[in-house]
Amino acid sequence: FQSKLPSTGTTIFTQMSELAAKHNAVNLSQGFPDFDGPSALLEGVNHYIQQGSNQYAPMIGVASLRQAIASKIKRCYDNDINPDTQVTITSGATEALFAAITAFVQTGDEVIVFDPAYDSYDPAITLSGGRAIHIPLLPPSFAMDWQRIADAITPKTRMIVINSPHNPTGQTLSQEDIAQLAELANKHDLLVLSDEVYEHIVFDGAQHQSVLRHKDLSDRSIVVSSFGKTYHTTGWKVGYCIAPAALMGEIRKIHQYLTFSTTTPMQLALADFLNSAPDHDQLLPAFYEGKRDYFNKLMSESRFSFTSTPGTYFQLMDYSAIQDMPDTEFALWLIEHAGVAAIPVSVFYQVPPKDMRLIRFCFAKQNSTLTKAAEQLITL
Amino acid sequence: FQSKLPSTGTTIFTQMSELAAKHNAVNLSQGFPDFDGPSALLEGVNHYIQQGSNQYAPMIGVASLRQAIASKIKRCYDNDINPDTQVTITSGATEALFAAITAFVQTGDEVIVFDPAYDSYDPAITLSGGRAIHIPLLPPSFAMDWQRIADAITPKTRMIVINSPHNPTGQTLSQEDIAQLAELANKHDLLVLSDEVYEHIVFDGAQHQSVLRHKDLSDRSIVVSSFGKTYHTTGWKVGYCIAPAALMGEIRKIHQYLTFSTTTPMQLALADFLNSAPDHDQLLPAFYEGKRDYFNKLMSESRFSFTSTPGTYFQLMDYSAIQDMPDTEFALWLIEHAGVAAIPVSVFYQVPPKDMRLIRFCFAKQNSTLTKAAEQLITL
Ligand SMILES: CSCCC(=O)C(=O)O
Ligand SMILES: CSCCC(=O)C(=O)O
Repeated sequence: FQSKLPSTGTTIFTQMSELAAKHNAVNLSQGFPDFDGPSALLEGVNHYIQQGSNQYAPMIGVASLRQAIASKIKRCYDNDINPDTQVTITSGATEALFAAITAFVQTGDEVIVFDPAYDSYDPAITLSGGRAIHIPLLPPSFAMDWQRIADAITPKTRMIVINSPHNPTGQTLSQEDIAQLAELANKHDLLVLSDEVYEHIVFDGAQHQSVLRHKDLSDRSIVVSSFGKTYHTTGWKVGYCIAPAALMGEIRKIHQYLTFSTTTPMQLALADFLNSAPDHDQLLPAFYEGKRDYFNKLMSESRFSFTSTPGTYFQLMDYSAIQDMPDTEFALWLIEHAGVAAIPVSVFYQVPPKDMRLIRFCFAKQNSTLTKAAEQLITL
Repeated sequence: FQSKLPSTGTTIFTQMSELAAKHNAVNLSQGFPDFDGPSALLEGVNHYIQQGSNQYAPMIGVASLRQAIASKIKRCYDNDINPDTQVTITSGATEALFAAITAFVQTGDEVIVFDPAYDSYDPAITLSGGRAIHIPLLPPSFAMDWQRIADAITPKTRMIVINSPHNPTGQTLSQEDIAQLAELANKHDLLVLSDEVYEHIVFDGAQHQSVLRHKDLSDRSIVVSSFGKTYHTTGWKVGYCIAPAALMGEIRKIHQYLTFSTTTPMQLALADFLNSAPDHDQLLPAFYEGKRDYFNKLMSESRFSFTSTPGTYFQLMDYSAIQDMPDTEFALWLIEHAGVAAIPVSVFYQVPPKDMRLIRFCFAKQNSTLTKAAEQLITL
C-alpha cells in the first residue's frame, strides 16, 4: 500500500518525552504541567462517575459545559455566542482542528499556515486533498509580514490558520495583526482557523487578542481552545470549537464520525468548575508569569540567551554560545550533557531558517523542577 | 461553501435520544446501559486522578492497557499480538474506525460495507475520496450472500468492513462466513476492517468469531473494539484497534493528528480492571442473555413478532401486526403512543428493503426499565 502521509513520523513530542524517560532527564520538552489541576475539579470528576454519569454525552457536548463556555466567552471577549448552535465539545483541541480542516478544505484548496507551525495542521490539510502554504516567521521577533501574506493569497486560498499565543515561539498577535487579518480575510473571503489553546496564558498585563473580540473576523472564523492548558489537565482531552452556526453545522458532521462525543464525567466536572471558579482563568497569567520569570532568572546565569516571551508556557532560548550544531542534534546533546529534554524549533518549519539555534523549554513545571533543570543547564 | 457530506444529518441516535428525553419516554433507542460499570473500575479512575495521572497519555496509549489488551486477545482468541506495535488506544471505537479508513482508503477506492451498516463507515469512506459499495443483508436472517459479495469486488476494491456481532440486527458471523471472507480477501488482496465492539456479547453458548482467531485473515485485518460496551462505560470513549505492525504504523500517523491521545485516568483504570478481573468478560454473555430473555419473555405477550438474536444488546422486532407504516414514522408513533423510544432499521440502509417493518430495541437496561417499556408496548 501507499502511505497517505509518507513523510510523517512520530511527533517530536513523543520522541522527546520517550528519550527524557529513557535518560531520566528533566522533561521540559512536551508541553504539559507536572502539577495538578484544582482539587475541586478533580473531585468533580469522581462525583459524576459515582453518580452514574458514565454513558455517552450528547454528540455536541453536554449542555452545561457549552453554556459555561458561552458565559466565559461573554465575560472574556464580550461576544454573545449561542451555546446550542455555535459550540461543540471535542476530544481535545487536536480533534477540533482536524474536524474544522476536514469540514472545509477540499481537493486543491490552499491553506496558509505560519511556520513554526503546530505539527497537526499540515497532515490534516493534506488528508483533505489540500495544500498547506507555509509562510515562515523569522527569529528573533517572529513577526507577521502582512505584505508577504497578502502576496501568498491566490484564488485557491480557502483558509488561514493562526495561533496566538503561539506555540512554540511564545509570541502573540497584536490588535494591529488582527485588523490586518480581518482586512485580508474579508477581502478574499477566507475562513480563519484560530488556535487559541493558550488564550489564558498571556503576560505583562497584555490582553489576549481573541478572534472572538473582533466581530468582523469572528463571523468567518473557527476558534479552537481546550481545557488542558488552562486547568492543568492535558490528559483529559477535552477541547472545543466555536464558529458561526452555519460553519458549525459542517464541523459537527465531521465530529460525529470522528469521535461522536467526548468523555462525559470530565465534561460535567469542567462545567461546574467553570461556573464556580471563573476567576481561575484570571489568575492564570500571574501564575505562569511567575514561572516564566522564575525560570528565566535562574537561566540568566546560563550561556543561553533569550528575551522573555509574552505568552504560552514555552520559552525559546538561543544556544549558539554553547554549541554550533543543528537544534535536532542539540536536543539530543542536551539530554546527554545536561539531563534536560527540550524541543528543537526547526522541526516546526517546512524549510527551517538557516543556522537557527533555538530550543524550546516548557516552564509549566513545579519550581523545584525548574530549579533542577536550570542548575543543570547553567553548567554548560 | 460546499458541504463535503451534503446528505449527512444528525445521527438517528442523537435524534431519538433527544425525542425520548423530550417526551419523557423509556429510552430503548441509542445503545447504552442505564446501569453502571463495576465499582472497582469506577474507583480506579478516581485513584489515578487523585494520584496525578492527568497529563497526556502516550500517543499510542498507556503501556499497561496495551499489555492488558494483548493478554486478553491471547486468552480469548489465542493470538499473540505485540502490544507495542499492534495495539493503539483511541477515543472510542468511532475514532479507530475513522483512523483505519482514513489511513487506507484513497481517492477512487471502493470499500464494501453491509447494510444495515453502522452510520459512521460511509462518511469516513467518502471523506477519503472513496466509494462505499453497499451490499444489503435481508431480513429475517440478514445472512451474508458470499456469491453476491464476490461479484461486487472490482479491481478498485480495497477494503471490506464487517461487524459481528452486528449492530443493529444482532446477528453474528459464523466460522463458515469467516472462512469465505478469508478466501475472498486473500484472493483479491483486500484489507478487512472488523468492527467487534460487541465481541463479548454473544449468546446461547456460541463463540465470537473474532477475526483474530483466524491467522489467514488477521494478517490483513484491522480489528476495532471498545471498552464502552463491555464495561458499561459508553461515555468514557476509550476504544482501541489491533492490526499488523505495518498497517498500524499508518493508522497511528492518522490517530496522532485526529486526537493524539486518549483520556489518561480512564486508560489506567481500565488496565487495572482488565488485569484484576479477567472473568468480567466471561460473565457478560450470561448477564446480557438474561436481559434479552427477560425482555423477550415480557414482549411475547405483545403483538410484536421476533426471534431471539444471537448477539449484541439489541433486539429487532417486527411491528407489522400493529401498524403498517415506514419504520421512521413508526418510531415517532411509538414514542407518542407507547412512550418508548426505539431505532428504525431502514436508516442504516442505502436502499432500504421495501416494506420492512422492523424496529430496534436496546435491552442494556435495568430489568425495571425493561418491564416498564414492555408494559407499555404490550398495550399496542
Ligand atoms: C499533543 S502533545 C504536544 C503538546 C504540545 O502542545 C507541545 O508540547 O507543543
Ligand atoms: C455513538 S451513539 C450510538 C450508539 C450505538 O452504537 C447504537 O445505538 O447503535
